[in-house]
Amino acid sequence: MPAIQPCAPAKSGEDTGSAGCRFAKSEERTSHDQFRRGNRRLLAQGSLNLKLAQALEKLAAGKLVFDYVDIGDLPAYNDDLWVNPPASVLRMKEQVAKADGLLMLTPEYNRSYAGILKNAMDWGSRPYGQGVWQGKATAVAGTSPGSIGAAVGQARLRADLASLSTVLAPSPR
Amino acid sequence: MPAIQPCAPAKSGEDTGSAGCRFAKSEERTSHDQFRRGNRRLLAQGSLNLKLAQALEKLAAGKLVFDYVDIGDLPAYNDDLWVNPPASVLRMKEQVAKADGLLMLTPEYNRSYAGILKNAMDWGSRPYGQGVWQGKATAVAGTSPGSIGAAVGQARLRADLASLSTVLAPSPR
Repeated sequence: MPAIQPCAPAKSGEDTGSAGCRFAKSEERTSHDQFRRGNRRLLAQGSLNLKLAQALEKLAAGKLVFDYVDIGDLPAYNDDLWVNPPASVLRMKEQVAKADGLLMLTPEYNRSYAGILKNAMDWGSRPYGQGVWQGKATAVAGTSPGSIGAAVGQARLRADLASLSTVLAPSPR
Repeated sequence: MPAIQPCAPAKSGEDTGSAGCRFAKSEERTSHDQFRRGNRRLLAQGSLNLKLAQALEKLAAGKLVFDYVDIGDLPAYNDDLWVNPPASVLRMKEQVAKADGLLMLTPEYNRSYAGILKNAMDWGSRPYGQGVWQGKATAVAGTSPGSIGAAVGQARLRADLASLSTVLAPSPR
């Protein structure tokens, strides 16, 4: 799940704060290689959606900075863990909270999206009043081998993102 | 996710084979306590759905034998792992394959069901041609605090179970 950060013509590397456009500092930006290592439990070696993300990142070069969010190491959602939240959960929530927008990519599994993405959405929605999704500009894309690609999976994801009160971009689809 | 095994008046502890009614052998049956320990990463201490499962098990005493399936230790779905499948995946698939029926319980998270249940469904549907869901008699229940309980989450789960070609019981809801 890349978190899109608009790349505006301002001082490079400067954090303009939560109210303005935020820029990824070079030392905190996640490279593809770091992402692949971090996600080795999650991503298949030939992940089509990672390739899609990288292609979109290239297309957006100079306009958007992509910060890849690792969701493969999130535990199964459990309310009890908020007493001492897992580092993976705090890191994911912070990356999402800081981003100016989100691009969620998913394969299609069984006419829906990947289950672990829903697990990440559940973590990000809690604790009550401290969710990171509400009002976040969000776009959805995805692919899978086969003629319909991830068309149905994306539609299901869009429905669940509406429940999270994200602001959904009408495209891509 | 309890896997329901009809308890018919036959020799106790006998495995009647995959074609007939199967009985949980006492040494392989998962007790509540074992389930709670195994699922400590998954289940909240006061899990309402575990309580619901236990209440249903009591109501079905003498008719059905419940075998609890741990899905909290399944890794994020990754096609690459089939080369050397995780023990947790093989155990889950075997429990489901052996059961005469399934009862899936879920809380409602963000107007759908728990993401990790979808992750378990994805694992159980693969490799191609070796899925465990097709034709399996399946019922859905669930609860959450609040006036609608898990009504919407259950509806979403039922839709995804249809995609898995389970045979869905019309109730409970």
